[in-house]
Amino acid sequence: MISKNQIKLITSLSQKKSRDESGLFVAEGTKLITDLLPAFVPHLFFSTTEWLQKNKELITLQPEIVSEAELHKISSLKTPQGVLAVFRKPTYTFSAGALTSRLSLALDNVQDPGNLGTIIRIADWFGIRDIFCSEYTVDAFGPKTVQATMGALARVNVHQVQLPCFLKELPVSLPVYGTFMDGKDIYTETLEPNGIIVMGNEGRGISPEVEQFVSSRLLIPNYPKGEPTSESLNVSVATALVCGEFRRRRY
Amino acid sequence: MISKNQIKLITSLSQKKSRDESGLFVAEGTKLITDLLPAFVPHLFFSTTEWLQKNKELITLQPEIVSEAELHKISSLKTPQGVLAVFRKPTYTFSAGALTSRLSLALDNVQDPGNLGTIIRIADWFGIRDIFCSEYTVDAFGPKTVQATMGALARVNVHQVQLPCFLKELPVSLPVYGTFMDGKDIYTETLEPNGIIVMGNEGRGISPEVEQFVSSRLLIPNYPKGEPTSESLNVSVATALVCGEFRRRRY
Repeated sequence: MISKNQIKLITSLSQKKSRDESGLFVAEGTKLITDLLPAFVPHLFFSTTEWLQKNKELITLQPEIVSEAELHKISSLKTPQGVLAVFRKPTYTFSAGALTSRLSLALDNVQDPGNLGTIIRIADWFGIRDIFCSEYTVDAFGPKTVQATMGALARVNVHQVQLPCFLKELPVSLPVYGTFMDGKDIYTETLEPNGIIVMGNEGRGISPEVEQFVSSRLLIPNYPKGEPTSESLNVSVATALVCGEFRRRRY
Repeated sequence: MISKNQIKLITSLSQKKSRDESGLFVAEGTKLITDLLPAFVPHLFFSTTEWLQKNKELITLQPEIVSEAELHKISSLKTPQGVLAVFRKPTYTFSAGALTSRLSLALDNVQDPGNLGTIIRIADWFGIRDIFCSEYTVDAFGPKTVQATMGALARVNVHQVQLPCFLKELPVSLPVYGTFMDGKDIYTETLEPNGIIVMGNEGRGISPEVEQFVSSRLLIPNYPKGEPTSESLNVSVATALVCGEFRRRRY
C-alpha cells in the first residue's frame, strides 16, 4: 500500500526543484533498477507480485508489494514496468589531479534529456568515469534522462559544475578537446590518452566562455571529406564518434 | 485560410495508414522545409506572415499565408515553427547492380522514430545514399522521424523492402555486415568500401531470418576492451560508430 504522502513525493520528483530539495530521484524498469540498486541508496522500492516472482533472483533487497493500479498512480511511463524505486542522488567528489591521468567528458548546455542519457551510456561503454555538466545542462536525474541511461548512471559519475571555472582550474598541461566546424580532422590529429572532451549545446555548439579553454579544436569529417554539406550530427552521435576515435587509438 | 478538409487531411497524416493511402507526409520547421522543398513535390505549403518575411529568400515557392491560430490546428508540435508543408512521398528505385559499388544501410525492425531519424542523418553525413528498411521498421515518413532527420530525408533514399528477400537477391559477392556480441573487432577487421551494413532492433538486435545473410560479423569493442560489461549501445550510436569506421578507412 502506497501512502498519499509517498504518491505526492514520487510524482513531485518529475520536477527538478523537488529533486534538488529532497536529494531523491525516480527509476523504473528491471534493467535500470537492478543496475542502480547496488550503486545507490534506495529510499523507496515498489514492485508488483508478478515482477517480484519473475525477478527475485536479481535483487537482494525486498520491495514493498503494490498493485498494478497503485503503480499506475506513481509511474511516469505509459506502460509501467512492474517496478519503481526512489533513490538518493549520489554526491561525487573529484580531484583535478586524478583527472590528469584519464579521459573525461564535459557538457556545455546539452538540453535534451534523451541526448544526455545516451551520452551517459556512451561514456559507460567507452570506460569514461566522469562527466562534468555545465549549470544549464539538463538534469541527469530527471526521469527521461534516467530512463535513457539504461543503468549506465550506476557506473558513470555525473557532476554539475560551473564549466568555465572548472576548466580554468585544471592543470594547464591537460588537453581540452572540442569539436568545431573549423577544427582539425580528428582522424589525423594527435589524441592524448588523457584530457577533457567538451561537447556543446544541440543548436549553438560550444559557448564562447567555454571555447576559450579548448586547447585542441577537432572536426569529425563528413564523407566524401570536404564536400559542402548542410548536414549536422546529433550531439550524442558526435560524442560517440569522438570517444570511439580516442579509444580506438588505445585498444 | 485552411479548409476543414485540409485540416482533416493534415491531422490524419500522423497515422501511417493515411500516409500510405494518400502518399503524403507532413514536415514542419524552417531547416526541414527549406531542405525538403527542392527534393520533394509539395502538396500543401502554409506559413505565417512573420515566417515568410524572415525567410522569403530561402524559398522559391510562395506559401499560403495562415494565422498562428490556424497553424496550431494543423501542427503536431507544441510550439509550431511558423511553417508547415505536406509533401508527396517519393518513390525510389534501385538496381542490385548499382549497390555493388557503394556502401548502403539496412535496418531490421528499428522501432523508435527518433532512432530512425538520427540514422538517416548519420547516413547523410557519411555519404550513404540508400537505407533499406524491413517491413516492420518504423515509417520514415511519420512526423517524429521526419522531424528527427533535420532535412537529411531530402538526400537519403529510404526504401521499404522485405529484408530477407532483398538480401537474398543481392550478388553473393557483396559483403553484408552486421554487429553481434560475438563478432570480430571492427577496428582490426577488413572492411570493404562497398556492401550492406545491417543494424538490428533496439532490444533484440538482428533477427535470425536476416542474420543468415550476414557474411561478416562485427563487434564494436567497449573500453577497456574485453572487460565484461552490462552496457549496450543505442542503435543510432552503434550505426554512427560502424559507418564512421568504414569511412575513416577511405578518407
